[in-house]
Amino acid sequence: MVKTIGYAASSSHSPLKPYDFERRGPVKNEVEIEILFCGICHSDLHQVENDWKNTIYPCLPGHEIVGKVTKLGSTVQKYKIGDIVGVGCMIDSCQKCSACEEGLENYCESEEGFLATYNGNLKKPTKDNLTFGGYSNKIVVREDFVLKIPAGLELSAAAPILCAGVTTYSPMKHWGVKAGDRVAIIAVGGLGHMAIKIAKALGAKVTAITTSPHKTTDAKSYGAEDVIISSDDEQMKASANKFDFILSTIPEPHDPNPYIALVKRDGIFVMVGVIAPLSKPLDTSKMLIDRKTFGTSLIGGIAETQEVLDFCAKHGIAPTVKIVSIDSVNDVFKEMKEKTVDFRYVIDMKTIYGKKAEESLLEKIGF
Amino acid sequence: MVKTIGYAASSSHSPLKPYDFERRGPVKNEVEIEILFCGICHSDLHQVENDWKNTIYPCLPGHEIVGKVTKLGSTVQKYKIGDIVGVGCMIDSCQKCSACEEGLENYCESEEGFLATYNGNLKKPTKDNLTFGGYSNKIVVREDFVLKIPAGLELSAAAPILCAGVTTYSPMKHWGVKAGDRVAIIAVGGLGHMAIKIAKALGAKVTAITTSPHKTTDAKSYGAEDVIISSDDEQMKASANKFDFILSTIPEPHDPNPYIALVKRDGIFVMVGVIAPLSKPLDTSKMLIDRKTFGTSLIGGIAETQEVLDFCAKHGIAPTVKIVSIDSVNDVFKEMKEKTVDFRYVIDMKTIYGKKAEESLLEKIGF
Repeated sequence: MVKTIGYAASSSHSPLKPYDFERRGPVKNEVEIEILFCGICHSDLHQVENDWKNTIYPCLPGHEIVGKVTKLGSTVQKYKIGDIVGVGCMIDSCQKCSACEEGLENYCESEEGFLATYNGNLKKPTKDNLTFGGYSNKIVVREDFVLKIPAGLELSAAAPILCAGVTTYSPMKHWGVKAGDRVAIIAVGGLGHMAIKIAKALGAKVTAITTSPHKTTDAKSYGAEDVIISSDDEQMKASANKFDFILSTIPEPHDPNPYIALVKRDGIFVMVGVIAPLSKPLDTSKMLIDRKTFGTSLIGGIAETQEVLDFCAKHGIAPTVKIVSIDSVNDVFKEMKEKTVDFRYVIDMKTIYGKKAEESLLEKIGF
Repeated sequence: MVKTIGYAASSSHSPLKPYDFERRGPVKNEVEIEILFCGICHSDLHQVENDWKNTIYPCLPGHEIVGKVTKLGSTVQKYKIGDIVGVGCMIDSCQKCSACEEGLENYCESEEGFLATYNGNLKKPTKDNLTFGGYSNKIVVREDFVLKIPAGLELSAAAPILCAGVTTYSPMKHWGVKAGDRVAIIAVGGLGHMAIKIAKALGAKVTAITTSPHKTTDAKSYGAEDVIISSDDEQMKASANKFDFILSTIPEPHDPNPYIALVKRDGIFVMVGVIAPLSKPLDTSKMLIDRKTFGTSLIGGIAETQEVLDFCAKHGIAPTVKIVSIDSVNDVFKEMKEKTVDFRYVIDMKTIYGKKAEESLLEKIGF
C-alpha cells in the first residue's frame, strides 16, 4: 500500500482540504508515480461541485498529472524508475471492446466505460470503484495508461496537455483540420487557449471567440489571427459562414446556434466541454441550408494522448501555465468561475509538504 | 407566354383550387415541359399552410415533376421535343458561388439561395421572384435544371425521386453509407419509404423506425430487415448504440435524443425533414461518450439528382406510388397529416383537364 496525501472535498459545498489515504499497489504492470505537477481543469470544479450529479465523496480531483516513476510492479516493461511520465483522464478500461481495440479507450464500450482517474468509472461511478486523482503526492497506474513526457517539454506545462491538450487535439485530428483551414475556438480558458496553439501548429488560420474583451491580447499571443467578442452582434454577423471548423470549449450548457451560424457549408461545430444537455435546441433550419454538422468529442485515446504530447514537443508549443501551491486550489476554483483565466493553473505538488499540510499529514507518510 | 392551369392556395387556410396563369418563355436555354406526373411532398403541405412563415400566396406547390418536352428555347442543347424529363426542387441558382461550382446548387451561397420550383428563392422569397410549381400542366425551366428520366423507370414512380429520392440519397452518399452498414430510417412516409429502398440498394442492413405499427408490413416490403416502434421503450432500449447511420425523415420538429441514443460510436444522426428548430436541446452528455455526430442535409445537387435517378433505374427501385387526380389533393393533405401514408401520392396531371377544371379553364388554354 502507498500512503498518500492529497486534497479532497467532502461534499459539493465543501472546500478542498488535506486528506490522507492509501493507494493499492504497485502490483504486476503498475507503476507508482510521485506527482510533481497537476493541472487544475474545469472538470475538477464540475466534479467537486457535483454539477454532473454523479460525484461520490470524498472527491479528490486532478487528471493532468506529471510525475516521476518511483516504484515498479513485477511485470512492468515500458518504464523504469526515474522516468518522467504523465497520467491523464483515465487509468484503465475494459481492453476488450471494439473501441479499446482501436485505441479509443476514451470511448470504452463496456457498461462502466473507462475508469476515470478520479470519481471512478465514467458511466457508473460507485463507492466500490471510487478513484482519487492527481491533487495528491502519489498515484499508481498500470503502465498502459501512463504516457511518456517527451524531452523538451517543460514539466509543469506538459501536465495540461494530458487533458486540455488531447481534448482539443483529438477532434481537430478526427475531423481533419489542416493547413489553411479557418478554425474558430470558442472560449479562451484552459482548453481554449491550448486549442488555439494546436490549431495554429496544424497550420490553420485561427480566430478566438470570447465573451471577455480583456482576453484579446492573450488570445493573439497564443496564435489567434483575430478575436471575435461574442456579445457583439455586428462582429458575429460579419463572420457568418466563415469557418471550416469551430471548437466550443465553453464548460457549461449554452446555446450553440449563434456559433453554428459562423460555420461554413460542410463545416462542423464540435463541442467538447459540456457534459449536459444544451440550453437551446438546434435550429436545423439554419443548419441544413449549408449542410452543417454538430459533433461531440470526449478527451482522446491513450495513443492519441502520446501523439499530442509528441506533437507539442515537436512544434515547441505547450500550455501557458501559472504555478500555484495546492492550498490555493479553492481560490483558483473561484477565479475559474469568474471566467478570468485564459491559461492553465498547475499545482506544484511539492507544496503539499508545506506548512499547512505538514502538521496533520507528514508524520503519517514517514517524512 | 405559356397559358397554364394549376391548383393553388390563396391563403394558409384555403384549400387548393383551380388557378390559371401564364408562364414566361421558353427563351434561350429554357425548355417547356408538359407535366405528366407530380408527386405530393410533405413540403408542399408545409408551404401551403405557411409552416415556415415564408409563404407568398397564391401558393402553387409541386416539385416532383415528370413530363415531356414540348417546346425549346433557341439555344437548348441537351433536350429535344418529346424527351421525358424531370424537374425537382430548384429551377435555378446563382451559378457563380463555390457551391454552384461544385455542383451543389442546393447549397447555393448567393443571398437568395437557389430558386425554388415554387414560392421563389429559398432564402428570400418575394412577390417578385414568386414561382409556381408542378401542380400544373406546364412548366418552363432552363435546361441545366432539367433531369433526364432514364429508360426503365415507370414515369409516375420516377416523379418522387426528384425530391424524396435525392433528399434521402444525398446524405447517404455524403456520409458514405456502404454495404454492411447498419442504417435506421425514422418515419416511413414519402421520404422514409424511399430511404429504406435506397439504403437497401446500397447494401445496408436497414431498420425502419416508426410510431405506426400498421406500417410494419410495408416497411419490410420496402427492404427493412426489422422495424422498431418508437413508442416502445423496450424496443428502443434494445437498439441502443446499434446504427452507423440514422436518417430522420420526420417532417416536423421533434426530440432527436431518443434516436441519437441508437447511434453507435462515431455514427451520425442526420435530419432532412425539419426546417425549424428542434423541440428539445441535444443532450451532448449522451453524445460525446460515443463521439456521435448530428448532421443536416437539404435535397441534393442537380448532378446528384441525375445520379439517383440513374441509380434507381440501375437497381430496379422506385418509390411506391398511388396515382390520384389533382382535385383530390386537399384530401391527400389531410391524410398525410394523419401519418397514415407510407408511400407517395402522385398526381396524374391529365386529370387537370377533367370535368371539374374543364368548365373554368379549358377554353383559356385553347383545348
